[in-house]
Amino acid sequence: MRVLGLDPGLTCAGYGLVEQKDRSLVAVDFGAIRTPQGPVPRRLELLYDEIRTILVRHSPDAVSVERVLFSANTRTAMSVGQAAGIALLVASQAGCEVAEYSPNEVKQTVAGYGAADKGQMQLMIARLLGLKDIPKPADAADALGLAITHIHSRKLRRLAARA
Amino acid sequence: MRVLGLDPGLTCAGYGLVEQKDRSLVAVDFGAIRTPQGPVPRRLELLYDEIRTILVRHSPDAVSVERVLFSANTRTAMSVGQAAGIALLVASQAGCEVAEYSPNEVKQTVAGYGAADKGQMQLMIARLLGLKDIPKPADAADALGLAITHIHSRKLRRLAARA
Repeated sequence: MRVLGLDPGLTCAGYGLVEQKDRSLVAVDFGAIRTPQGPVPRRLELLYDEIRTILVRHSPDAVSVERVLFSANTRTAMSVGQAAGIALLVASQAGCEVAEYSPNEVKQTVAGYGAADKGQMQLMIARLLGLKDIPKPADAADALGLAITHIHSRKLRRLAARA
Repeated sequence: MRVLGLDPGLTCAGYGLVEQKDRSLVAVDFGAIRTPQGPVPRRLELLYDEIRTILVRHSPDAVSVERVLFSANTRTAMSVGQAAGIALLVASQAGCEVAEYSPNEVKQTVAGYGAADKGQMQLMIARLLGLKDIPKPADAADALGLAITHIHSRKLRRLAARA
């Protein structure tokens, strides 16, 4: 199973593709999509094209998107919400299973507790994926965390369904 | 000049196409796009398709979208923000000029003051467009107001550029 994690944003959107091979998790690809300063509609269009290209390249089974929490930062919330809309749209258009997870749900899954800090999270993500170095930039690490969370959550739901 | 106004939303998005003929404004088409209850990604996809169809049908010169204010209602702000992202994306993909106006800017233009209530606004929109009845539903009237605002604002900017 291959899952693409997406941490939406206009200035920098992180992406990370994780594949489950037998019992291990492999980071197939990760990085960040940046759109140049300018009118928002054009930036959303560039984001749409870039995410689409990644989906075509990797054809993941599922896309895991960060759930935007508007209380966090009202100043940037608007553009993050718009960017999240684009991420959900592209994933749906590609026929992928789509899930959303809050930052706390990702922390709970990856580090075992919802209050884990950024450094602990990055260390755990590197460890879970067998990476020597911490994935850069930070948004790419977040995206890998989202992908791991979906793989984990799917496994649990499958077990629950069997029980 | 033909302008499409869009009042984004997942449950109900209003649209309204206004054409300026000589010195009068004509409501060419208006209505609402509704997406059925269900997963958000699929609803965003339906919204994308519907707006695209309207743009292809009318090929407006510009699209005028309501600027989402997140302080208004945090509960629905997330989905409105995502829907607004889709509206801006489709307009940009169609190569249209895109503008955003806040509800207060629309009220100022249509009714002459930013504190106008919904009833006053609907009456003024009907009058400015020479409509016998108030455009229904309310979201369609809002969308027509957005289109009128852009036409007005464009005219002022042209005058200012000449001066």
